[in-house]
Amino acid sequence: MTTASNYSELCRVWARIYRFNHLSAIVGWDRNAMMPPKGNAARAAAEAELQTLIHRTRTEPRLAELLRAAEQEPLSELEHANLREMRRDWRDANALPESLVEAKSLAGAKCEHAWRTQRPANDWQGFLANFREVVRLSREEARLLAAESGLSKYDALMDRFEPGVRAADMDRLFADLKQWLPGLVARVQSKQRAETVIAPAPPFAVAAQRALNHDVMALLGFDFAAGRLDESAHPFSGGVPEDVRLTTRYREDDFAQSLMGTIHETGHARFEQNLPREWLGQPLGVARSYGIHESQSLSFEMQLARSRAFVGLLAPLLSAQLGAQPAFAADNLYLLLTRVKPGLIRVDADEATYPAHVILRYEIERALIEGEIEADDIPALWDEKMQALLGIDTRGNYRDGCLQDVHWPDGAFGYFPSYTLGAMYAAQWFAAMRRAVPDLDSKIAAGDLTPVFAWLNANIWSQASRWETPELVKCASGEALNPRYFREHLETRYLAA
Amino acid sequence: MTTASNYSELCRVWARIYRFNHLSAIVGWDRNAMMPPKGNAARAAAEAELQTLIHRTRTEPRLAELLRAAEQEPLSELEHANLREMRRDWRDANALPESLVEAKSLAGAKCEHAWRTQRPANDWQGFLANFREVVRLSREEARLLAAESGLSKYDALMDRFEPGVRAADMDRLFADLKQWLPGLVARVQSKQRAETVIAPAPPFAVAAQRALNHDVMALLGFDFAAGRLDESAHPFSGGVPEDVRLTTRYREDDFAQSLMGTIHETGHARFEQNLPREWLGQPLGVARSYGIHESQSLSFEMQLARSRAFVGLLAPLLSAQLGAQPAFAADNLYLLLTRVKPGLIRVDADEATYPAHVILRYEIERALIEGEIEADDIPALWDEKMQALLGIDTRGNYRDGCLQDVHWPDGAFGYFPSYTLGAMYAAQWFAAMRRAVPDLDSKIAAGDLTPVFAWLNANIWSQASRWETPELVKCASGEALNPRYFREHLETRYLAA
Repeated sequence: MTTASNYSELCRVWARIYRFNHLSAIVGWDRNAMMPPKGNAARAAAEAELQTLIHRTRTEPRLAELLRAAEQEPLSELEHANLREMRRDWRDANALPESLVEAKSLAGAKCEHAWRTQRPANDWQGFLANFREVVRLSREEARLLAAESGLSKYDALMDRFEPGVRAADMDRLFADLKQWLPGLVARVQSKQRAETVIAPAPPFAVAAQRALNHDVMALLGFDFAAGRLDESAHPFSGGVPEDVRLTTRYREDDFAQSLMGTIHETGHARFEQNLPREWLGQPLGVARSYGIHESQSLSFEMQLARSRAFVGLLAPLLSAQLGAQPAFAADNLYLLLTRVKPGLIRVDADEATYPAHVILRYEIERALIEGEIEADDIPALWDEKMQALLGIDTRGNYRDGCLQDVHWPDGAFGYFPSYTLGAMYAAQWFAAMRRAVPDLDSKIAAGDLTPVFAWLNANIWSQASRWETPELVKCASGEALNPRYFREHLETRYLAA
Repeated sequence: MTTASNYSELCRVWARIYRFNHLSAIVGWDRNAMMPPKGNAARAAAEAELQTLIHRTRTEPRLAELLRAAEQEPLSELEHANLREMRRDWRDANALPESLVEAKSLAGAKCEHAWRTQRPANDWQGFLANFREVVRLSREEARLLAAESGLSKYDALMDRFEPGVRAADMDRLFADLKQWLPGLVARVQSKQRAETVIAPAPPFAVAAQRALNHDVMALLGFDFAAGRLDESAHPFSGGVPEDVRLTTRYREDDFAQSLMGTIHETGHARFEQNLPREWLGQPLGVARSYGIHESQSLSFEMQLARSRAFVGLLAPLLSAQLGAQPAFAADNLYLLLTRVKPGLIRVDADEATYPAHVILRYEIERALIEGEIEADDIPALWDEKMQALLGIDTRGNYRDGCLQDVHWPDGAFGYFPSYTLGAMYAAQWFAAMRRAVPDLDSKIAAGDLTPVFAWLNANIWSQASRWETPELVKCASGEALNPRYFREHLETRYLAA
């Protein structure tokens, strides 16, 4: 027996969990990207069996004592961080009774399945019938997690996506945003109305878009020996760090959707592909929170790929694969990729109006979880907030209003803030990067992306779950999350010159 | 508690195993058809973890008592058959100590890995160094299985691939074959030397071959909503009955390899896709033995697809997808697809010379397992038997001789007979089918394949593991395996008219 035998035993348990999660990730990718429809029932049964097994492994009764005993053992700093992450994973798995986890999973699956047809049918009342149960179980989940952690109910849910970030933090960030964002959006729109933009002329053959995406992924350093790009109805970044599986979707009338989506997912992918190999298999080696992960996809999609310098690199690739056309001239392409326009749909929103969609959802879901409102109240609140934040009337349009996202039917409350946290972190990373590399943009313009990758690797990718999120932000950028970088980024890109 | 509560508990255990096997099948398919190279180490660890779990489930100590108690319960005929198959699976899993299974798996993996470079290097001595250990462990495996079952050592190995068929049966079948097959091959060759055959003119674009394969799979009734065709270095039929994953490989200079390979795998696939849905999840619902499975692929590839009638259906599909050329005229295509020529390589052999390759391997591996020869003796025996059976000199050519197959480096002794059993069963099925449907060939020629599918479905597919192999053969064709049908098939196809 070594002096850290309890810790070693915990490492063995989490190595097993890592391997089971590998299986889960690959068959999950397959289900979304490869599986023919009649495979569904057998796959659901096989995946449920695996989830049961993983849950059972994470809730083995002996783990409580092992975790307690390991705290007393002489551990290195990294081992301590690993133990902290084991405990977090253990707490997440053990805080809720299996019956609740199962009931919520069933209610979410039922609600989400019906939502797929209720959304196009604009059927809010039909949706409500299932959704009330999802809300009831999510509140129960929040109540138990809050009791266990001492947090408020909504904080307890959000902590699973963004550990250490609280509703009070979000309130402060969002209050600030609400002060200046509507005015900024108005000023950008007024500026852009004066610009002449040449629209791209479709069609764009899918095979050509696919080749373009491969070119751009290669430029962005994606390792094709350790991952793939495929297609699925809803694009995602899946697989495992050793074998990252990205998906996109193609429209012949719009190359930008697949291209910018691919760039976004490539940001997630490079984080995974560059997690420290020697930590893989342990909780320490897992990518930090949802918000930090989103900071990587948005670093690629928003900070890097929509910069003037990078658009200059994109332009010739577009012409080479899709055929030259006036819209692909670098200056015009830049204008195309930086349009700002308030709209109904979050996933189609530009980076300036996106936060409004998140603020609205955050305010509604927090009140819902805390019991201040009921599910029935959502449409009226949605209308009111869309009007206030983006000046858009959504009355009666549930389809493109409160029925548009999969998160609520799925019961994933507390997730939305991660999107805007990610955008803010990304702006803060690039500000720090420009301080460290003053000629960053001319390097990018010259096709040298190494300073970007080197900074992200040193400060984010290589850190995995070594630090809690707030510590990571400080180590990486020298200060706590500061929304001024996001504001400055938007002002520089959309209002300067 | 019902009166069959032990049996019900066993069903729950094997339903779990079925779901774990589903995961194993899908990640195994992915590894061969999709996985990028750097995913290999993590995948191997995840798959090994899953195999350990499956093995542990099949060897839970309580199963012995449950199986014994279930035998006493009032079960239906189908339940009895299911229990028999559970016991077979349990015996397979429990007959060997885990240490031997692991040692053999490691030795096989090591030998097979080195073989990949030793084969092209013609390095028999290098191969021997690893192979002796594979043989030693396989003999130990055979000894333990024999002690448990009361069979001879080689019979005990073969029983895992073809339950109920013994070396004495193979000796009888092969003695018969050796009597007439060399003479038949010589007569066919002499007949074919007089025929003029137009060679196909390559190249054949991979995309066109892929489209052709899809057309032919559709014609053969493959359900694309319950399966896929992809590509891999070594074609196989994988996945699960609810979602069958076939692979093929393409050469631009030879359309027949991917086409006939795809037809072969489609035969396997239709068996899987038509196993009785209500039995799936239990051992009863698994496709019968390796030999019976091969009888389906060979029913499609040899009996059906190389018949004059079917070649008439193939010809226009070839012209449509690959472009018309003189070689694709039905009469010429038939000549092309029925060439007989003794050769070095088993997997490239035509159906008339194929059994010689199997007989040779069977005789060598049986003597090896029974301890009558040593691994060092193989090349000399190989040369002698190739000369005797096919008149081919292989001295010094290990690469295209005894190093050509993956089975021995992998330690899969007892497998080879299944290939020729499959060919014989297939001939027997088609003889029975022609008795039941006298105008079978004119129906096929008219594009009506339903009588073929209906017969196979009623007699083979729908029976899954309901009967032991010898019973199944009798139920399906009215008699025990009879090699005369294979002989008559070859004589009719290759010597008549």
